[in-house]
Amino acid sequence: MNDILYNNSIEQQPVIGVTMGDPVGIGAEIIIKALAEPEIRKAAKFIIFGMNEQLLIAADRSEIEPFWGRCQHEKLSRDYPYKVVVADYDEYSVPPWIKEPSKIAGQASAEFCLDAIDAAKRTIIDAVVTAPINKTSWKLAGVKWPGHTEMFAEKTKARRKAMMFVCDKLKVALATIHEALFEVRHKFTIGCVFDPIDLLNDALKKYFGIEKPRIGVAALNPHAGENGRFGDEEIRIITPAVTLAQYQGIDCYGPFPADSLFLRAVKGEFDGVVAMYHDQAMIPVKLLAFDTAVNITIGLPIIRTSPAHGTAFEITGKNIASPTSMICAIKTAVSMARLKTQNLMAEKTRSEGK
Amino acid sequence: MNDILYNNSIEQQPVIGVTMGDPVGIGAEIIIKALAEPEIRKAAKFIIFGMNEQLLIAADRSEIEPFWGRCQHEKLSRDYPYKVVVADYDEYSVPPWIKEPSKIAGQASAEFCLDAIDAAKRTIIDAVVTAPINKTSWKLAGVKWPGHTEMFAEKTKARRKAMMFVCDKLKVALATIHEALFEVRHKFTIGCVFDPIDLLNDALKKYFGIEKPRIGVAALNPHAGENGRFGDEEIRIITPAVTLAQYQGIDCYGPFPADSLFLRAVKGEFDGVVAMYHDQAMIPVKLLAFDTAVNITIGLPIIRTSPAHGTAFEITGKNIASPTSMICAIKTAVSMARLKTQNLMAEKTRSEGK
Repeated sequence: MNDILYNNSIEQQPVIGVTMGDPVGIGAEIIIKALAEPEIRKAAKFIIFGMNEQLLIAADRSEIEPFWGRCQHEKLSRDYPYKVVVADYDEYSVPPWIKEPSKIAGQASAEFCLDAIDAAKRTIIDAVVTAPINKTSWKLAGVKWPGHTEMFAEKTKARRKAMMFVCDKLKVALATIHEALFEVRHKFTIGCVFDPIDLLNDALKKYFGIEKPRIGVAALNPHAGENGRFGDEEIRIITPAVTLAQYQGIDCYGPFPADSLFLRAVKGEFDGVVAMYHDQAMIPVKLLAFDTAVNITIGLPIIRTSPAHGTAFEITGKNIASPTSMICAIKTAVSMARLKTQNLMAEKTRSEGK
Repeated sequence: MNDILYNNSIEQQPVIGVTMGDPVGIGAEIIIKALAEPEIRKAAKFIIFGMNEQLLIAADRSEIEPFWGRCQHEKLSRDYPYKVVVADYDEYSVPPWIKEPSKIAGQASAEFCLDAIDAAKRTIIDAVVTAPINKTSWKLAGVKWPGHTEMFAEKTKARRKAMMFVCDKLKVALATIHEALFEVRHKFTIGCVFDPIDLLNDALKKYFGIEKPRIGVAALNPHAGENGRFGDEEIRIITPAVTLAQYQGIDCYGPFPADSLFLRAVKGEFDGVVAMYHDQAMIPVKLLAFDTAVNITIGLPIIRTSPAHGTAFEITGKNIASPTSMICAIKTAVSMARLKTQNLMAEKTRSEGK
């Protein structure tokens, strides 16, 4: 990935939007720490959607010299003369003693996201990296989406979406996400397995430069159900979804027993894996890459990545939050944005050549 | 573990029973390859419950000089003058061209096990290591138990039992096993979570020499259900089971989100983990230790270990089966048997001293 991070002049560099997340969480701290890294600032330009005051406090606590410019958030532009600029929402102010979900924090963090989505649609930015929000704060603020994923999908009019996690050794898309395990059965359809296969295939091609991705699909039941002995979802749902995907030209296989599939993928047999439920994906991802896993929403017309952790209210302000996952999320977004641009240029050249 | 493997004179060495498993599978091959290792034969004495003819064929194919004695299976004794002896069932003969489940293979492999259990109860052997059986062969032979675990539990009158997997970095007991994932909900009770906590605690003390085991209990739902937002099994079932175990003096904690718990255990925060369903345990175990994981039935009055793989009919006779998992299963059984003996001796000394 390093090759693709640094091979353009500054004018050609992607512009990455970074939303500050819940003002009470560790968002400001990890963003400042991540962007303070010279290798990150070399790779792209950045617009932080957040509160300059909070960022200054975080920088002060981390003993980092402020390195960014500031503008009013209404006046966004791709062409700031800074490597990093804060689109400042100084109309919001969250007292530093607040350590719990609040309406104001929810309003602010939702507005950062909505404006970042809008900026991405207007190609002011090439990707959005989101610091964690608090779902209760959003609820208190009357935000109508339960989380980032749903907001991004609706605001970009994405018909389908899937959650994907990437780390060094694994790329996994999920068929179902934040559901009670036993409730998954009510939503478990051929479409809900087919969609992540299809979206993962697209994402691996478009954003990870894999020409013909090989995708392994996990079974739901132990031993892949042993031909219906322990559950028939493999027969009724997963196999038809795999067949449908193969019929559409996707190089995918399965369902395979989940307990050997992830190792097979790690060893290189598959470029990506589709998991049936949250923990089936997250157990291997967090075991292999607790700090470096990146969450990506696939199926959107814009690029969105985020660290794979939460707001961590309990350690806010203590200068102990690790920016590793945020750094990985930014690097992934930069690399995805560059590949997307390259593909568009190649497309353009091809169509002009005709 | 190595210390405990070799610290006794030959008279004090444990005697390990090894059942050959399905005669059509790779049992004979992996047993011969495992026991051909000098370090294994140094650690204990062995009685193989199986067919001498098959073992000779496996040795010949693997170019291993036969190193064992033979006796009729009716004449079992702890005091054979051999390091390895085959209790021979020459009344069974399975033609080498059979490559599928059969009644005769089911009868033979069930009898190996029943006799090994009996020998363990009579302390002719100190532990049983089982090579894989084929469940369809057992069905064809009219064997009334679906697998080893159920047979061992009933024949040793074990009131409770649990499946446990151990590898270098993890020791995991399972609350439910070979169930369709969505059927788990019908069997998910406080007892079915409490039992593996209690049995794991006993096993870690008795067989792994951990004085006060710290046990981490996995949640069932993503993010441990987020206080009931995604499922209430944590509140209704797992927390009461953990509380009950704590009340009985067990040092256990949870329920914790499964996607971080295994890493916490690997890093040493817990000595053992209780997983709620098959793949939740097996994904991390196989990812960390595909070849070296060992299956143990806990809760029995006798020691039973086995490799964590199946009969692998498709590679029988090809001399490509790896004995690694069998070697680990044997080493674990030896170490468990030695610790059990040590504990019994200490107990005896204590009670005599009174």
